[in-house]
Amino acid sequence: MSEFDQEYFPHKESQELLRSYKTIWALNHATSLLSWDQETYMPEDGVFERSIALSEIATLIQRLITDKSFLEKIEALEKIEDPTIYERALIRVLRRSLKYYLKVPPEIIAEFSKTASEANVVWRNARKENNFEKFKPYLDKLVSLNIKIADYLGYEKNPYDALLDLYEEGLTADEFKRIVDKLVPGLKKILDKILSDGYFSRPCPLENMSYDVNVMRKVNEKILEIFGYDRRRLRLDVSAHPFTTNMGIRDVRITTRYEGIDFRRTMFSVIHEFGHALYELQIDERLSFTPLASGVSMGIHESQSRFWENIIGRSREFIYAIYDLLADNLDLRGKYDVEEIYRYFNIVRPGLIRVDADEVTYNFHIVLRFELENMMINQEIKTEDLPELWNDYMEKLLGIRPKTYSEGVLQDIHWSSGSIGYFPSYSLGTLIAAHIRDKMSKEIDLADNVRNLRFEPVKKWLREKIHMYGSIYPPRELLKRSLDIEVDPTVFLRYLEEKFLLK
Amino acid sequence: MSEFDQEYFPHKESQELLRSYKTIWALNHATSLLSWDQETYMPEDGVFERSIALSEIATLIQRLITDKSFLEKIEALEKIEDPTIYERALIRVLRRSLKYYLKVPPEIIAEFSKTASEANVVWRNARKENNFEKFKPYLDKLVSLNIKIADYLGYEKNPYDALLDLYEEGLTADEFKRIVDKLVPGLKKILDKILSDGYFSRPCPLENMSYDVNVMRKVNEKILEIFGYDRRRLRLDVSAHPFTTNMGIRDVRITTRYEGIDFRRTMFSVIHEFGHALYELQIDERLSFTPLASGVSMGIHESQSRFWENIIGRSREFIYAIYDLLADNLDLRGKYDVEEIYRYFNIVRPGLIRVDADEVTYNFHIVLRFELENMMINQEIKTEDLPELWNDYMEKLLGIRPKTYSEGVLQDIHWSSGSIGYFPSYSLGTLIAAHIRDKMSKEIDLADNVRNLRFEPVKKWLREKIHMYGSIYPPRELLKRSLDIEVDPTVFLRYLEEKFLLK
Repeated sequence: MSEFDQEYFPHKESQELLRSYKTIWALNHATSLLSWDQETYMPEDGVFERSIALSEIATLIQRLITDKSFLEKIEALEKIEDPTIYERALIRVLRRSLKYYLKVPPEIIAEFSKTASEANVVWRNARKENNFEKFKPYLDKLVSLNIKIADYLGYEKNPYDALLDLYEEGLTADEFKRIVDKLVPGLKKILDKILSDGYFSRPCPLENMSYDVNVMRKVNEKILEIFGYDRRRLRLDVSAHPFTTNMGIRDVRITTRYEGIDFRRTMFSVIHEFGHALYELQIDERLSFTPLASGVSMGIHESQSRFWENIIGRSREFIYAIYDLLADNLDLRGKYDVEEIYRYFNIVRPGLIRVDADEVTYNFHIVLRFELENMMINQEIKTEDLPELWNDYMEKLLGIRPKTYSEGVLQDIHWSSGSIGYFPSYSLGTLIAAHIRDKMSKEIDLADNVRNLRFEPVKKWLREKIHMYGSIYPPRELLKRSLDIEVDPTVFLRYLEEKFLLK
Repeated sequence: MSEFDQEYFPHKESQELLRSYKTIWALNHATSLLSWDQETYMPEDGVFERSIALSEIATLIQRLITDKSFLEKIEALEKIEDPTIYERALIRVLRRSLKYYLKVPPEIIAEFSKTASEANVVWRNARKENNFEKFKPYLDKLVSLNIKIADYLGYEKNPYDALLDLYEEGLTADEFKRIVDKLVPGLKKILDKILSDGYFSRPCPLENMSYDVNVMRKVNEKILEIFGYDRRRLRLDVSAHPFTTNMGIRDVRITTRYEGIDFRRTMFSVIHEFGHALYELQIDERLSFTPLASGVSMGIHESQSRFWENIIGRSREFIYAIYDLLADNLDLRGKYDVEEIYRYFNIVRPGLIRVDADEVTYNFHIVLRFELENMMINQEIKTEDLPELWNDYMEKLLGIRPKTYSEGVLQDIHWSSGSIGYFPSYSLGTLIAAHIRDKMSKEIDLADNVRNLRFEPVKKWLREKIHMYGSIYPPRELLKRSLDIEVDPTVFLRYLEEKFLLK
């Protein structure tokens, strides 16, 4: 009897490879729980032992995955003549994980990990103190380490491509540049019209309304119930920054935070994370315990969270359908009509902080980071010029200029963790979400389903087109096969026009 | 620079051994969290993936600890001429963990683990259905596997000794028999007097009083605060059965359950688990990440939980001191005076269920199990005779006879998990707790400290005599060095007499 699905993995070579991988799967499972617990329930002083446990286990995973006998099992599978698509995917995904460890020398990996963990602490203080100089030497080191890593990983044209590929398989700077070149002028036109019209940009008192945390907890739970979430497989907790973790296909957890003011913030964080969670929960269970049993890329993952957050959550249909829930619990009735709630959820306004940005301005923040990262990695700019360049771009793109580093170049955690090349996947996600809306609307009556809070057809569609495949197909191939698309910003721009200009 | 304490572990052999052990430490840390989470927050369906993760990690730990290079590091340390007591302890503790894996053949370990996990499921149903026949074949198999394991482990006189040693280092059936022979007649005399007097045995309406779970949560939290618990290192959660887990010296977690009736049950479970937790929390931090950084045996651990639960928690001084807290929150004022609460917390009454037993009758339940286990492992009785033997012993010891298997032979989880030899450590714990009270009272004014809810001196005493040593000394040596005692039931019997007969 085979331990893993006989139809997907018919060869003894894949069965043996998966048998060995199961230990690594278990260590990843444990790592997810250790990280989740660190952000939710761990007593404060536990962090010392926890961080050591996490780093020991990370080293162990690296040791097991690069172990000679494991590599030989991959090679054995590579030699068979008639692999199934699942077996081919197995090789592709494992080779991708291995590439980093096999091509980058261990001393660089160790230096990178040490620098990143120091830099993260320094960055937190630097941001608090608005002190770029303090962070600069660490950023310098992380940039130069990233350049070295890109060299070791190899690339055809642009070292930045090697880094982009770590987060979004196959994405290149050229490709993203082509997207940006179409996206930015379109977005600018739309933003200008929205601002001159004023309807979506003017303030709303709800932005400053405080709420009772317990009431809001109930509202968030209720919204998850409306989406038909399965409590046996998903839970909602509280953490300083919202995130999703998956321990497997049957245990996924999301978090939110309660700031006590501006309730859309917690509500949309829940809907956003639900989108991420649903992707993991709807993966084909026959892929359990294999490296194919998780979302394929950051971009596809972000398309799922944005689809639920923006396309569904901020739609007029949804807001009309949940108006009673909100009005009753948050004492809005007679004070704010449903159209005002709709406007509140969809306020468009240039701001300095990426994570607070709306659907229209969000991508400008990414474009700015993309341009700066690309130039840094190609050594066209120095980190000392970053703060001013950041501010200049901000002014050029959104017409506003940060007054402090903390609301400018120091705002994101990514660079301090050594992640360069991550941001573009956020934009890809927003564009793909619009493609999904477009395709889905041709096959099921999306608006009508949302209006009636019928989410089964939506979830089924997402499962069959995207979720179930896990990491079987690379992102580009998945989009081609399932949606017959290549990412094109026109669809996203058309969606924004419909929503904000033809309101 | 050495990674581990230079004074405790001055030789490069111990430093290298500990470096390798750190990975195993991290996996134990992860295992603790995975198990804790399974009982507290894990979504229901997660159990499938969780149990596989746990078993993969258990196998991996076994692989790492029996790895040739790890064994060589132990041997290298064994060869040095001037080990410190810490280095000697390291060898002792690791050799103990290894003994099982090196002496018992892997196929027996695998069969045992498989049988136990099946038996556990069968036992749950058998207990529910009061069906001993259903459980019997599994018990047969587990008993015969335990006999085989005892043979592989080796013993001088009695195969049961090899099993006892797994839970209480160095304990033998002969030694425990000597304790029992003194304990039982003494206990019988005390129990008879209590019952004929009637004061401590008559019913109290509080046994049937229901409570509000949220109120009781607050009371439990408050009691932990009175003990001066450090929220940065300890947390209280809810699970079906109360337990303590330690992720390290800086992260310990206890649980309780809320049945909504008979509030002393949840309250004393919290105090009991606090005793376990404090032991782990007060271990010398210089032992961090080593195999010495946890409680040394089940018996010593149980002495800590029983000390807090019985000696402190059920003392007249403590109950007088917390009367206001209980009376105010549970609406007892004017209905129950403090003496009646004291009586309620100390009701003595023969009952069928071990986990519900009071201080006086508890040890009878253990004696019964000890006698039966000893005979089973020596093949003097057959499992088919167990239910009747159980009932006969019960009648002989406590004068009551179970009417069902569920309240007799099927009541405990231990045998169904394959644990034979565990029970005696519970009794040892209660006897050692009385020794501790005896010794402590000679050095600090225990009663006065408790009366004034001053627990720092008590915790300091426990830290300096017991806790800080972790697993440095075997239990018998620890008791000799720190308390200058050998376990003697007389001290426990004297304590009971003072408490229940001279009231």
